[in-house]
Amino acid sequence: MKIGIIGATGYGGADLLRLLWQHPKVSEIITYTSSQQDLHIHESYPHLISIYEQKLEELNADKIAEDVDVVFLATPPGVSSELSATLARSGAQVIDLSGDLRLANPAIYEAWYKRRSAPVELLNKAVYGLTELNRDQIRQAKIISNPGCYPTATLLGLAPLIKAQLVEPESIIIDAKSGTSGAGRSPSLMTHFSEMNENFKAYQVNTHKHVPEIEQVLHSWNEQIDTVTFQPHLVPMVRGIMATIYAKSTKPLTEDYLRKLYQTSYQEDRFVRIRPSGLYPATKEVYGSNFCDIGITYDERTGRITIVSVIDNVVKGASGQAIQNWNVMNGWDESTGLNVAPTYP
Amino acid sequence: MKIGIIGATGYGGADLLRLLWQHPKVSEIITYTSSQQDLHIHESYPHLISIYEQKLEELNADKIAEDVDVVFLATPPGVSSELSATLARSGAQVIDLSGDLRLANPAIYEAWYKRRSAPVELLNKAVYGLTELNRDQIRQAKIISNPGCYPTATLLGLAPLIKAQLVEPESIIIDAKSGTSGAGRSPSLMTHFSEMNENFKAYQVNTHKHVPEIEQVLHSWNEQIDTVTFQPHLVPMVRGIMATIYAKSTKPLTEDYLRKLYQTSYQEDRFVRIRPSGLYPATKEVYGSNFCDIGITYDERTGRITIVSVIDNVVKGASGQAIQNWNVMNGWDESTGLNVAPTYP
Amino acid sequence: MKIGIIGATGYGGADLLRLLWQHPKVSEIITYTSSQQDLHIHESYPHLISIYEQKLEELNADKIAEDVDVVFLATPPGVSSELSATLARSGAQVIDLSGDLRLANPAIYEAWYKRRSAPVELLNKAVYGLTELNRDQIRQAKIISNPGCYPTATLLGLAPLIKAQLVEPESIIIDAKSGTSGAGRSPSLMTHFSEMNENFKAYQVNTHKHVPEIEQVLHSWNEQIDTVTFQPHLVPMVRGIMATIYAKSTKPLTEDYLRKLYQTSYQEDRFVRIRPSGLYPATKEVYGSNFCDIGITYDERTGRITIVSVIDNVVKGASGQAIQNWNVMNGWDESTGLNVAPTYP
Amino acid sequence: MKIGIIGATGYGGADLLRLLWQHPKVSEIITYTSSQQDLHIHESYPHLISIYEQKLEELNADKIAEDVDVVFLATPPGVSSELSATLARSGAQVIDLSGDLRLANPAIYEAWYKRRSAPVELLNKAVYGLTELNRDQIRQAKIISNPGCYPTATLLGLAPLIKAQLVEPESIIIDAKSGTSGAGRSPSLMTHFSEMNENFKAYQVNTHKHVPEIEQVLHSWNEQIDTVTFQPHLVPMVRGIMATIYAKSTKPLTEDYLRKLYQTSYQEDRFVRIRPSGLYPATKEVYGSNFCDIGITYDERTGRITIVSVIDNVVKGASGQAIQNWNVMNGWDESTGLNVAPTYP
Repeated sequence: MKIGIIGATGYGGADLLRLLWQHPKVSEIITYTSSQQDLHIHESYPHLISIYEQKLEELNADKIAEDVDVVFLATPPGVSSELSATLARSGAQVIDLSGDLRLANPAIYEAWYKRRSAPVELLNKAVYGLTELNRDQIRQAKIISNPGCYPTATLLGLAPLIKAQLVEPESIIIDAKSGTSGAGRSPSLMTHFSEMNENFKAYQVNTHKHVPEIEQVLHSWNEQIDTVTFQPHLVPMVRGIMATIYAKSTKPLTEDYLRKLYQTSYQEDRFVRIRPSGLYPATKEVYGSNFCDIGITYDERTGRITIVSVIDNVVKGASGQAIQNWNVMNGWDESTGLNVAPTYP
Repeated sequence: MKIGIIGATGYGGADLLRLLWQHPKVSEIITYTSSQQDLHIHESYPHLISIYEQKLEELNADKIAEDVDVVFLATPPGVSSELSATLARSGAQVIDLSGDLRLANPAIYEAWYKRRSAPVELLNKAVYGLTELNRDQIRQAKIISNPGCYPTATLLGLAPLIKAQLVEPESIIIDAKSGTSGAGRSPSLMTHFSEMNENFKAYQVNTHKHVPEIEQVLHSWNEQIDTVTFQPHLVPMVRGIMATIYAKSTKPLTEDYLRKLYQTSYQEDRFVRIRPSGLYPATKEVYGSNFCDIGITYDERTGRITIVSVIDNVVKGASGQAIQNWNVMNGWDESTGLNVAPTYP
Repeated sequence: MKIGIIGATGYGGADLLRLLWQHPKVSEIITYTSSQQDLHIHESYPHLISIYEQKLEELNADKIAEDVDVVFLATPPGVSSELSATLARSGAQVIDLSGDLRLANPAIYEAWYKRRSAPVELLNKAVYGLTELNRDQIRQAKIISNPGCYPTATLLGLAPLIKAQLVEPESIIIDAKSGTSGAGRSPSLMTHFSEMNENFKAYQVNTHKHVPEIEQVLHSWNEQIDTVTFQPHLVPMVRGIMATIYAKSTKPLTEDYLRKLYQTSYQEDRFVRIRPSGLYPATKEVYGSNFCDIGITYDERTGRITIVSVIDNVVKGASGQAIQNWNVMNGWDESTGLNVAPTYP
Repeated sequence: MKIGIIGATGYGGADLLRLLWQHPKVSEIITYTSSQQDLHIHESYPHLISIYEQKLEELNADKIAEDVDVVFLATPPGVSSELSATLARSGAQVIDLSGDLRLANPAIYEAWYKRRSAPVELLNKAVYGLTELNRDQIRQAKIISNPGCYPTATLLGLAPLIKAQLVEPESIIIDAKSGTSGAGRSPSLMTHFSEMNENFKAYQVNTHKHVPEIEQVLHSWNEQIDTVTFQPHLVPMVRGIMATIYAKSTKPLTEDYLRKLYQTSYQEDRFVRIRPSGLYPATKEVYGSNFCDIGITYDERTGRITIVSVIDNVVKGASGQAIQNWNVMNGWDESTGLNVAPTYP
């Protein structure tokens, strides 16, 4: 199949190029840009020299739809609201890595994103691509809205608990930590090396755009859940997210019961790995891979469950899950092109 | 005054040497060791070459008590349980940076530390050295039990709220993040550079020794508080702790009300700095200094208060607070020797 | 083919497991250990959970030779001196990643390694596996001595110049910088995170074991070269080596001439990438991959050539080059299993 | 004395504020800006909250000269060319941390800096502030040109050797490594955290502005020295420079002879520390301090001397040396305000 990538000069796009290089269903990759046409990919990303020799092409939605079979949009907010409908109409599969199509309610999008929402008809067509939880819908989708990085780690960490109604609805607190790649490639004071190294920062306190995304999905699983506390932090590292999740149990539990619940829930999901008792995953243990690793325990003293969920934000939180969804859409083995072991150390 | 430091080859001891070099009340510093006598300090710490030329001396409690006016114990667990009584009897001021004397209840100590507690008589004599909250007792103390690094950041972050009874007693969650210096100087796989860099780890889930220390102090401020959830993590950086603290408010509040409460509570405390609305401290903003910086907000959606409290774990969390306590014990200006601005970037 | 790995708990072994997971010629992998038998691989390396479920097996040279077709030795000094002969006798292909078989002259080995050399007969059988320069010999070899990480970056950086006799024989200075993974997995004070982060260190000044290895190969290319200055440093990062190489030109040159020389020399070598004029590779641009990237220039003011050569020390400097050699030994495409794009950022 | 700082929002300026806070000769500090007037210092640098409460003032050379006794210029290229003359005329002491006044020959400045030089008369008045080597001139100076960070580490590392005529004039190679703070506070792709962490980069190959500065000083010590090879690199850390210096000896030497030469040369210089045989300084051992630490050895095999010289680029390479020079200009103890021990770890 012929692949189009819009936004190849961002980190999500670059990681798509890394993973798709050896994907057996790819016949050709065309990269599109709104501003840097005629630049060679390796002029922007020297690590891809000799791997990709082509130039970036001009972004023209009609032409793209003719040229390729699937389009990955790794674009800033606002772009896919405009492009996705055109692309999908013409028959291309669309996988949108931006946040534009994730929130079903335009009013909520506009309150948190501070910009115009995509039209409702488009939102209705987009399927939320949390692969492990939504496979059936994804199989039949033409447009995928790929989940945010924080929601991916959080929702995979919470799904078995919420679906089993084991958590007090108002008790959920997600303390999340991310490497800096999630902030993108545009230089800023916040992610300037001299300001970020040997430093640890909280940011967007109570105002991060992933709050309503998490709440929307949790609410769809348990109507009593309306709000959560979600707080992101920046870690002086490049890749990796850890969500440490705290929730009050509705009843006394054992850790053993929890572990079995998680193992059963994810027994068909090769990219979700549940750790043995007493062990918790560190972010580096999924570095460069599509895995989501989860540790879980129960504290009798406080009646709280603690979940530690880690992903590589650029892979399972973006490019890898996008490819996983593309595999599902086409009926291929879900791990095609994604059997990449974590790079450690 | 003549100073003795036991445990000068650890990071707490090294930082005492850094800060005491220019302390105007110091006439001489003698460093003691149980194992490395006759080693020059700068053989262990080359950064102190030309600053300290003396050798480490043999550790002998009786002799130390004769030789010096104050002893700082920066020692592993178990040491000060044995030494403090002897030292104090002989008239020396004792400031213990280990955890041995922090928990008033030996049974709790033994449950969490998995070792024998110091005798109750000794525990009764030791004053908990959270300077800003305990000055009156510290002034008259002979033995100071210097707080743990995590409890310092946590308790300074929570004190005004708890004392004002603004928090639901069972709702407190402390998600803490520390640089690796808190783990000490002994090499281990967990803190091996190749395993720790580009990595973020949760550890001692629900089992950290600082849990009962935090609970003991919070309970002394509000009897309804029995347990908290406290979860530490390791950040790929050397110095710095951030405690992100979540608590349910007992009633609707405004952020403005909270800020004023904190500003008033700490108006006499030059080492506690409350950030303006919308700003939260990063750990590097206190690097190398004795400050504790605090940001605070209230989320109307969830009814939760979020507090971001940062310290340099080696300074305000160990050496700096120890010197601050020593200043208070002697009636000197509390900031003597501690007017060190953070090193930034 | 059936693979044996001895020393799978070190970083070289772990990276072999990462890369061999998807190698199409691998039917089974058995890992051997001298000390940790019955440990599951993922108990030592949690990132490999669900990827490798087997246990480490007891190390017994005779049995190994029966069980597998090829043995990779990622072992400490001294082990392969003893094992390689036995293994090779029994017909297994042997690829030794340690330094034991690299130096042809036992006296030089003993002077630099401070231990007994392997017997000369064994040294004579081992082929030095600098793939790009030694393919013909490797094709017929039974025992490969895989090059050191620093020599790989250095020799690939120097080969075209030396072979073209363009360098004053006594003028070569190699200033090398490595991430900490080269120091292995055993914790030490030097590589303790708190000592290594925000730090840059020179080490083994004029005494590193890779000095004679570099000199031996350069001398084989140009008999007038007897000694070089090679100085390694530790960088606060995990993976990556840069060798910055300085050499006096024997005659006035142009940069253009040099670049063409390098491009021609390496035109058949897909893992060596020569950068365009004015661009120099950074270590991260080869992260996780088997590439060696080279930048080169000439300074008219000083008559010196500067070469910047980077590799991932764990891959091209160890596991990747080992697999590359194994591919060559078996007449497969040299890049089989190694088409892994660098992970960036 | 009243202090003026121009360029307080850069890292050099921020570090001047850190160190001058406790300098006993400072009565007041006024900070000037060309663009951010009315901003509080702590709005730009939150770590200085409660330490400096004043606002940035408008930059007006005439007014500054009236208001203060000494001006530190921590400004981008071109600014002090214009301001220094005006300031000096009015009687203020001027200490320029930029490169504008360092090169005596305007043609050389213009060739390397690619901009107009300051007028010769101004250049003639400026004294090069390499304190340890130039004290007599500094004592009588009105305008100090503070050395560059790389030249400081390099020249202190080479001075005894060059002055003793022990080095082949054409043999000097300086391989230098710096933390990112030397690149300043303006965000850029090169110093974006995601691009710089776990990365090591060479930059400005053969074209760095500090080349002619080093050559000018070395030539003044030994007329036979015209050119050196100087190559800078960026290390994934914030503070610290290491210069690894290689030079051919003019005659056979012993390491012992070299060490004594260095110890004698620097016996009156408390900020230069020579390491014992076999030990070499790491950058962190001077972190935050004004020390320059030097290790030295001789290799009989190659006839080369290796010098490892480290400084904190922001302190001895900028703010600290500026204050040291200011102390000398005024006849105060040279270390006034600079007795800051390195922060370790």
